[in-house]
Amino acid sequence: MKESGRKQGAASPCAACKLLRRRCAQDCVFAPYFPADEPQKFANVHKVFGASNVNKMLQELPVHQRGDAVSSMVYEANARVRDPVYGCVGAISSLQQQIDALQTQLALAQAEVVHLRQFG
Amino acid sequence: MKESGRKQGAASPCAACKLLRRRCAQDCVFAPYFPADEPQKFANVHKVFGASNVNKMLQELPVHQRGDAVSSMVYEANARVRDPVYGCVGAISSLQQQIDALQTQLALAQAEVVHLRQFG
Repeated sequence: MKESGRKQGAASPCAACKLLRRRCAQDCVFAPYFPADEPQKFANVHKVFGASNVNKMLQELPVHQRGDAVSSMVYEANARVRDPVYGCVGAISSLQQQIDALQTQLALAQAEVVHLRQFG
Repeated sequence: MKESGRKQGAASPCAACKLLRRRCAQDCVFAPYFPADEPQKFANVHKVFGASNVNKMLQELPVHQRGDAVSSMVYEANARVRDPVYGCVGAISSLQQQIDALQTQLALAQAEVVHLRQFG
């Protein structure tokens, strides 16, 4: 998990504060996860979840879980921007179809193994 | 896709307008998808995406795609409320692990079929 954010003492705001046009405080909740050089990462999360919801969700989590929460929100937000109707639920449906297909293939192969062992 | 919403002429607001404490207009964008008798459905979507983002996302879609968009947003929101760190990305990771496991099992079974055919 990348948690670089702002360099200590650097004056440039994080990508979130830059987009929201606010001062990036030393203890900014966004800065560790939304570095200035990845503006699109925050833009999509902001568009889909809203900055105040993301802020609230991060504040409700212990610091050691925030990086993973940001990663999953970024993933969901990017999926929703790519596919405004299904978002990452489209990926879930497609993975479930793959599982169904693999289970069918596996059952056939296992049945053939049983048959070959009995009747060679 | 359930699109019952408000009964024509009924005075009660949809679940969204009720939570947002606003008048539920005849052409309310939420009403067809958030009926008054399912308040939790909107509550989670509101908590995770924010009412104004949901409104915007629905407005940007043709009417015939809005039901599916609401279903996928409700699914994502419920997953995020249950698991604030991974949301439905947790489901995606778990499905991908299942696929990996099935592919390994399938490769083994297929190798055994080839072996049994050659050497009985």
